[in-house]
Amino acid sequence: MNTLKEALQSMKAPTLTEEQQMALREGARKGRIQGVLMTAAAGSGHPAGSLSSMELYLLAYGAARIDPQNPDDPDRDRVVVSHGHTSPGAYAALAFWGFVSEEDLVPHFRQAGSPFQGHVEREVPGIDWGTGNLGQGLAAGVGFALAARARGSEAWTYVLMGDGEQVKGQVAEARRIAAKERLNRLTVLVDLNHIQICGTTEAIMPADLVALWKADGWRVAEVDGHDVGALYVALREAREGDRPTVLLCRTVMGKGVSFMEGIPDYHGKVASGDRLRLALEELGASEAEAARVVKLRDAPLPRGREVRPPVPCLDAGSPLTYGAETKTDNRSAFGKALADLGARNRGVAGRTPLLVFDCDLAGSVKVDGFAAACPEGFVEAGIQEHAVATAAGAASTAGVVSVWADFGVFGLDEAYNQQRLNDINGSSLKLVLTHVGLDVGEDGKTHQCIDYAGLLRNTFDWRLVVPADPNQTDRAVRWALTEPGNVCLAMGRSVVPPILREDGTPFFGDGYSFRYGEVDVLRPGRDGSLLALGALAGRALEARDLLAREGLEVQVLHTACPLGLDPEELLPLLGTGPLVTVEDHHVDTGLGASVALILARSGRVVPLRTLGVTRYGDSGASRDVYRRMGLDAPGIRDAFLSLRASHA
Amino acid sequence: MNTLKEALQSMKAPTLTEEQQMALREGARKGRIQGVLMTAAAGSGHPAGSLSSMELYLLAYGAARIDPQNPDDPDRDRVVVSHGHTSPGAYAALAFWGFVSEEDLVPHFRQAGSPFQGHVEREVPGIDWGTGNLGQGLAAGVGFALAARARGSEAWTYVLMGDGEQVKGQVAEARRIAAKERLNRLTVLVDLNHIQICGTTEAIMPADLVALWKADGWRVAEVDGHDVGALYVALREAREGDRPTVLLCRTVMGKGVSFMEGIPDYHGKVASGDRLRLALEELGASEAEAARVVKLRDAPLPRGREVRPPVPCLDAGSPLTYGAETKTDNRSAFGKALADLGARNRGVAGRTPLLVFDCDLAGSVKVDGFAAACPEGFVEAGIQEHAVATAAGAASTAGVVSVWADFGVFGLDEAYNQQRLNDINGSSLKLVLTHVGLDVGEDGKTHQCIDYAGLLRNTFDWRLVVPADPNQTDRAVRWALTEPGNVCLAMGRSVVPPILREDGTPFFGDGYSFRYGEVDVLRPGRDGSLLALGALAGRALEARDLLAREGLEVQVLHTACPLGLDPEELLPLLGTGPLVTVEDHHVDTGLGASVALILARSGRVVPLRTLGVTRYGDSGASRDVYRRMGLDAPGIRDAFLSLRASHA
Repeated sequence: MNTLKEALQSMKAPTLTEEQQMALREGARKGRIQGVLMTAAAGSGHPAGSLSSMELYLLAYGAARIDPQNPDDPDRDRVVVSHGHTSPGAYAALAFWGFVSEEDLVPHFRQAGSPFQGHVEREVPGIDWGTGNLGQGLAAGVGFALAARARGSEAWTYVLMGDGEQVKGQVAEARRIAAKERLNRLTVLVDLNHIQICGTTEAIMPADLVALWKADGWRVAEVDGHDVGALYVALREAREGDRPTVLLCRTVMGKGVSFMEGIPDYHGKVASGDRLRLALEELGASEAEAARVVKLRDAPLPRGREVRPPVPCLDAGSPLTYGAETKTDNRSAFGKALADLGARNRGVAGRTPLLVFDCDLAGSVKVDGFAAACPEGFVEAGIQEHAVATAAGAASTAGVVSVWADFGVFGLDEAYNQQRLNDINGSSLKLVLTHVGLDVGEDGKTHQCIDYAGLLRNTFDWRLVVPADPNQTDRAVRWALTEPGNVCLAMGRSVVPPILREDGTPFFGDGYSFRYGEVDVLRPGRDGSLLALGALAGRALEARDLLAREGLEVQVLHTACPLGLDPEELLPLLGTGPLVTVEDHHVDTGLGASVALILARSGRVVPLRTLGVTRYGDSGASRDVYRRMGLDAPGIRDAFLSLRASHA
Repeated sequence: MNTLKEALQSMKAPTLTEEQQMALREGARKGRIQGVLMTAAAGSGHPAGSLSSMELYLLAYGAARIDPQNPDDPDRDRVVVSHGHTSPGAYAALAFWGFVSEEDLVPHFRQAGSPFQGHVEREVPGIDWGTGNLGQGLAAGVGFALAARARGSEAWTYVLMGDGEQVKGQVAEARRIAAKERLNRLTVLVDLNHIQICGTTEAIMPADLVALWKADGWRVAEVDGHDVGALYVALREAREGDRPTVLLCRTVMGKGVSFMEGIPDYHGKVASGDRLRLALEELGASEAEAARVVKLRDAPLPRGREVRPPVPCLDAGSPLTYGAETKTDNRSAFGKALADLGARNRGVAGRTPLLVFDCDLAGSVKVDGFAAACPEGFVEAGIQEHAVATAAGAASTAGVVSVWADFGVFGLDEAYNQQRLNDINGSSLKLVLTHVGLDVGEDGKTHQCIDYAGLLRNTFDWRLVVPADPNQTDRAVRWALTEPGNVCLAMGRSVVPPILREDGTPFFGDGYSFRYGEVDVLRPGRDGSLLALGALAGRALEARDLLAREGLEVQVLHTACPLGLDPEELLPLLGTGPLVTVEDHHVDTGLGASVALILARSGRVVPLRTLGVTRYGDSGASRDVYRRMGLDAPGIRDAFLSLRASHA
């Protein structure tokens, strides 16, 4: 086995020996048996596609330089399984190469709590990206290849794909990024079995794959996907040249089991009874195996690999303080801090490289300073947000600090599912959303990202930070870039004057350091509270001044962390209210919703008014857009007064 | 003007006369002046791209058979502006052809409350699809063309696109649907000015457009995009043949204003001061015009067109009642009702045609029955969810009842932004999500759509219905298909026994009719309540039986409408609690969150425990997945008892 692995990994020989090929063919036969057995034992799964990809998995995992004893080595090659439902094939290949044990795998496929899930997940060693939503694996591979290049590593990336998923737009996007960036250490194997769930690929959605991959700048080769010798030669040839290569592998759906071959029905149907017996017989296994596996299902579950986001090694520099007179926006404060970290860490041994993605908005989202200072860490990917979201997420797990800045509606609304899957994958992306809330200039409703908190609230590990001003932005950026895990920073477009203490010094200046989840007490007050999100803090302070004219002293609170509030910190600050929450976010899903959840779950009553966005906003000057939504200072004042009156 | 319009619409003459061309050239010159003026007056906007698309807009709106006096005629041609930021060009063309008045338009561009928004919206007559998020217009055009075909109309669809957006994956998806469906009454004009925000298209993201459009099955023609005569000939030729045509139009960014020509900077920068003077001079307008327009900005705002979702004309048939003994799932009940409506209305004069979209899951999402009964109304679009979401949304505004059924994570998580933009567009899509919640069989976390309520809560007009059982599903489907507006039906995968009354008859059977927002009182009780969402109603009833063994009589409530709850209906039902909400949805964003918002805003206290999904779920048998999440009957019982104890 070791010699076989060495031969595949080194690719020194122009061809495999007959003996080596026989070993692989035998491995494929065994893998097929395992695939049939595990799906039968689970009573569900996708056997036929697993059988057709079997040799591709064996060869890719054989060629990849990953040590089964050390599958987390940061310099390893990476294999992405894009058609995640063919997990039985991938798992069987991992068993063949010693990543997992057959006894752990076969009986515990698709069993609640087992790492061997229906779609591949990172809990299994050798699986570097969890998939299942089709068409996304290539972008993950692009992210891995970009990360390897940024780290100066020679690691190779293999991506295995199905043919049904070839028509997903994200595939084309990822293809173009790979070609533009000349990711020559990237090899794709497409399992062309011509069958998808509802019929043949030609009937469901025709696509001229050779022409499309070629048009997007790839080297295209065609190969028999069941011929291990031919696959070896094709993989070896893919290592030459300055472009990424795709191998279009002709295969047979359900290969090796007569009644599954070429039958769409077995995409997601498992063999049982007589059919199971026949399948095992054809593959050269005994029927007794099936019973043995079913019995083993009651054995204790195997444990999965623990997936942890990597800890970056970066010098975060010193915070920059913007004084009272400064006229800048949070975007620019982000851009400045990012460029500072870029310049400060560039070329310093041991530091984690920064990789910054852009979708044709560098000047607006303020990553142009970084691009100028660190061009080698800047990826201009054009208007291709889906592929970028996945690529940036995958890269963040592979030894770089990965940053993607975009308008809110593009970075999150458009790529929500990709960010959900990044969360599932335990990635460590720094997503910077600009132009959030109503603060998009005159761009209007299609560009108003009024749902960033409402979207990320559906995930479990994304943290969201909406800074109040440039000072808090600077500190939050330095915190986020050195923090493991997915963090989203959200900010508007407009100039935001620094929040000041009553003595005129910056509130988020010297002595302040960012703490996730904190509630900032901007002003004290005994007559109730305004609790603002992000840049609305400034408007809340103005409203406080208006309320002072009415003889009221209102406390002004702010939080940058609507999804990280600690009830034990918040509730004592609220007293008996009244409380008006203030945000330019959808009124049912942002800060007000967080407060409502905390109040209702704690059984506390505080007279509450939630101010926010109650309809799609206008296209016009910011001051008009806010005024018409009732979110200017007089609107906040009036809401407070009316709430107070109704509880007098 | 009328003769010119007639010439363009009829396309009888092989070429335009010199006089006709002169009129169009003069129109283009005036349109450019308006574009410069309106962006200058607004102090924002995208002048350069508007100037480069000017002739394309004039010709497309000239050729399109839309009566400016009756721009809502259901049988009109349709024009989609995909690069919505070039609105000044589109608006100027609409003014030229008499859809809007110049006096309304030019001074009120990008003014809060004006219909002339920064990105085109449907409030302007002649704008049939609001855009601004790039790469989505072609799919809208595909939807219009499919709707026209389904209605037996000969209407034509024109789509105007920018070149920066060509690399968006959704464009390729839409292209393939159009080619597969042989939408020959669809013509695309691409403004190839080679400039996007950050530089040339070649530098930002190279793409071989000729090869890509050809590979996807389109007829490709190249033409000078500023030559009105050549454009006419190209549009005329596009009317022949059995395939859709794309015209790749060579243009100059900023055409007509020397200092804007070919300069990326003027993508989003307006002319002012000396530059404005120079621009007007070059275009043959006087400087005084600019001052006049600025002054007019204070005039009352023009009013926009009212956009209303169309009312379908369909015979909804008679509800089907599933008795106590039935073993079926909500998906199948949906599929049966859909096929029934299909068969019942097919070919009946005056009825609105049904158009059902599928992404390679017809058997799983149960639209196969409809496909068999009404093949002409079935669109198999492959794994291309982004394009389908937009196409189905656009079609729903164009005289068909448009249904898209897909797994929850694909129909909503993956296409969230498209569904948000459908909401903004006031569409009338019937989105059927199957495999929602934890109820996805063994597919595991990537396939568990635990956020459908949390996502749609960020919109303003989407209604969400999560039926409890096959009977409620049947009735909700018949309601949704005959109801204007966007409706999402969400359901799991498993068999759901019909909910019964205590007398053993179906709760949602005879005498029940679906009412949006209703709370269903399944069982009375004096010791507190369980409030369940969708198919969790059955588990709540089981938990009630377990609690009865503890001597407690618990009320069981259900709602199918977590986003439509009426506080005045819900609060009296809750009494003084305690209340446990039960859902297999993210615990912070579903039914529990709705209840929390209602409680906190109303200042009511009810001891509350929100049961839901608190981490990504397992891949395994449903009963194990639910048990491990604490969502089986014993889990619900325990939560109720512990809540009760903590408030004893």
